[in-house]
Amino acid sequence: MVSIIGIGKTTVKEHWDTSIRHLAWNAIEAALDDAHTTAVDALYVGNVLAGRLSGQAHLGALIADFAGLRGTEAVTIAASEASGGAAMRQAVMAVQSGMIETALVVGVEKMTERTGSEAVAALASQLDADYEAIHGMTVPAAAALLMRRYMYENDVEVGNFAGFSVNAHQNGRSNPEAMFRNQITAARFSTAGPIADPISIFDAAPYGDGAAALLVTSRERALDMSPHPVLVTGSAMATDTLALHDRRDLLWLSAAEKSTKAAMEMAKVSLSDIDLFELHDSFTIMAALSLEAAGFAERGRGWAMATEAGIGRDGTLPISTFGGLKARGNPIGATGVYQLVEAAQQLRGQAGDCQVTDAKVAMAQCLGSGGGTAVTHVLRLDEW
Amino acid sequence: MVSIIGIGKTTVKEHWDTSIRHLAWNAIEAALDDAHTTAVDALYVGNVLAGRLSGQAHLGALIADFAGLRGTEAVTIAASEASGGAAMRQAVMAVQSGMIETALVVGVEKMTERTGSEAVAALASQLDADYEAIHGMTVPAAAALLMRRYMYENDVEVGNFAGFSVNAHQNGRSNPEAMFRNQITAARFSTAGPIADPISIFDAAPYGDGAAALLVTSRERALDMSPHPVLVTGSAMATDTLALHDRRDLLWLSAAEKSTKAAMEMAKVSLSDIDLFELHDSFTIMAALSLEAAGFAERGRGWAMATEAGIGRDGTLPISTFGGLKARGNPIGATGVYQLVEAAQQLRGQAGDCQVTDAKVAMAQCLGSGGGTAVTHVLRLDEW
Repeated sequence: MVSIIGIGKTTVKEHWDTSIRHLAWNAIEAALDDAHTTAVDALYVGNVLAGRLSGQAHLGALIADFAGLRGTEAVTIAASEASGGAAMRQAVMAVQSGMIETALVVGVEKMTERTGSEAVAALASQLDADYEAIHGMTVPAAAALLMRRYMYENDVEVGNFAGFSVNAHQNGRSNPEAMFRNQITAARFSTAGPIADPISIFDAAPYGDGAAALLVTSRERALDMSPHPVLVTGSAMATDTLALHDRRDLLWLSAAEKSTKAAMEMAKVSLSDIDLFELHDSFTIMAALSLEAAGFAERGRGWAMATEAGIGRDGTLPISTFGGLKARGNPIGATGVYQLVEAAQQLRGQAGDCQVTDAKVAMAQCLGSGGGTAVTHVLRLDEW
Repeated sequence: MVSIIGIGKTTVKEHWDTSIRHLAWNAIEAALDDAHTTAVDALYVGNVLAGRLSGQAHLGALIADFAGLRGTEAVTIAASEASGGAAMRQAVMAVQSGMIETALVVGVEKMTERTGSEAVAALASQLDADYEAIHGMTVPAAAALLMRRYMYENDVEVGNFAGFSVNAHQNGRSNPEAMFRNQITAARFSTAGPIADPISIFDAAPYGDGAAALLVTSRERALDMSPHPVLVTGSAMATDTLALHDRRDLLWLSAAEKSTKAAMEMAKVSLSDIDLFELHDSFTIMAALSLEAAGFAERGRGWAMATEAGIGRDGTLPISTFGGLKARGNPIGATGVYQLVEAAQQLRGQAGDCQVTDAKVAMAQCLGSGGGTAVTHVLRLDEW
């Protein structure tokens, strides 16, 4: 078994004055400080677009050196917006194999280095280039197809999704690292400017620059080193067809379902054991579909959890407790690591004003574009 | 312990008529056929430039689906030209962890989708963007700096490096998948057109499209499944500073040294046990420096192994036995997997006209740009 012994992160925003290596270092420094160690045997970097947007395609060696880890094994792990979770999974397996003692995971993304058509094309490279992007499909356009179909099949309106964004912004208000800390209302959600109909600017999570880091080691070592080791009890990953038109069922995230089931089985927990769920709310439709795929809501009823106030910090299943992708921001390759860091803060009781009462078991799940990849982890505080 | 139970590869060339998913599939199909199984639990894709050159940044899900592995865990592993070896290392650790039973590794790169300044810029993103590429440095220019300094310090001429290319092309003549199968002479080498002085067109390995794949599983399962399982006895990875000006010693590949020592120690072998060495001859200077870093040659004397005929198939240390990067071709993210597949062919005694007599222990090593990353594996045929 593997445990988290250190966590760190930067604010998500437009970090104009910080290069990608420096951004990564800011999170790594915080995680190493938190763990009270600099002994790292391997570095796993979650990132998607640095080669294209920052001209840095060789991030492992670059970041290891800048972080004072010159010589250390280092590699980049990419799986679209699930890259951060995927990097964590490689670290977990590396430690579990016994070949690596302590692994550092950093998710880092500098989204705002380029703007305009270059950034749009880079983001769209997460779709199927030959059958989707070539025809002009973008990431929000793909989500819009899912949302429109969902609304049609389940007879719901745009306004029914408002609760996800309202909750995210409400939680983001208490998170000093959140990109957006303003409250929004359901009424404002329904009249917000469109991005890709029916998705509006208040529906889509904002892209931002950010980095988050965590340090994992064996459970035994963690119990020696940390006053509050967070045990990784479940870890799983799955894929689905990349192109939406190839899906057998457009409204079912089969990769999310598979990875959730496998992670929960490994962790020996059931849905009722999960005290909070950091899910991939890149768009409200993805939040609704994630809740359904995991089994928290019936098919076609995920949206209702947002209106029934079940997802707030005092609800039956708190989600996006630090603001989620929607308010904390979505630095894509880093997002999965933010989720894990935030979940660890909750379990340690160090979530500040974002704290969920009695958080014992947390689940974190990140999705590659359209649910093409899903990585799920289950965490709990270890006991002596 | 982990063993290779299936191998496959495509010819390295300009695959104009084949998309990147299809190219990957061609190698995967061969590897699955060779292993007589389609039971795969995870896919590790070694790739560097697909997001930029093919617009495909979400390769894991894309290739898993196209390869008939819909739903299977899949991720991209990147570490510049060491990506293929890095993907192998993640697969080895995954199987070793017990969390994955059978892992498929595919290295794939489609280099010729774009040409001109876009391709040059993409390749240069393997350097340090902020301190090297921004000033116009390219991958061959970086190697040229190393070669010029090496020539100065060790008092050798361009012609002294000819043996590496002559040997590579000699070996490539027997490899049906090689990009170049023509013989070259030392005289022609010394008068070849320059790319980045002192590096010429006969010194630099050609970039090409290609894919290579292999299947690994636990040693126990492999002994049940395969008539000739190839045991991975050593696996290690290390990094160095990315920017050349930050190196304490410009002419010493410290990442290569570290990973070679660690892999050999894990494999419990010494230099004299190595029967062949698939090294990263992206430029002849890299071959010379690799031989020195590994300890096969004294510092400043790596070049001499090429003139003393020690590197041929009947030499004391055969290298580039299928033509190496120079003649087989260098599809960068796939190169490390080609090396491993070729080493496995040698150990199985299935190298055809490329066969090295009595090959019992093989070492394969790939380097990220300028030696910023090094991944080394040691292989031997398993015994019942």
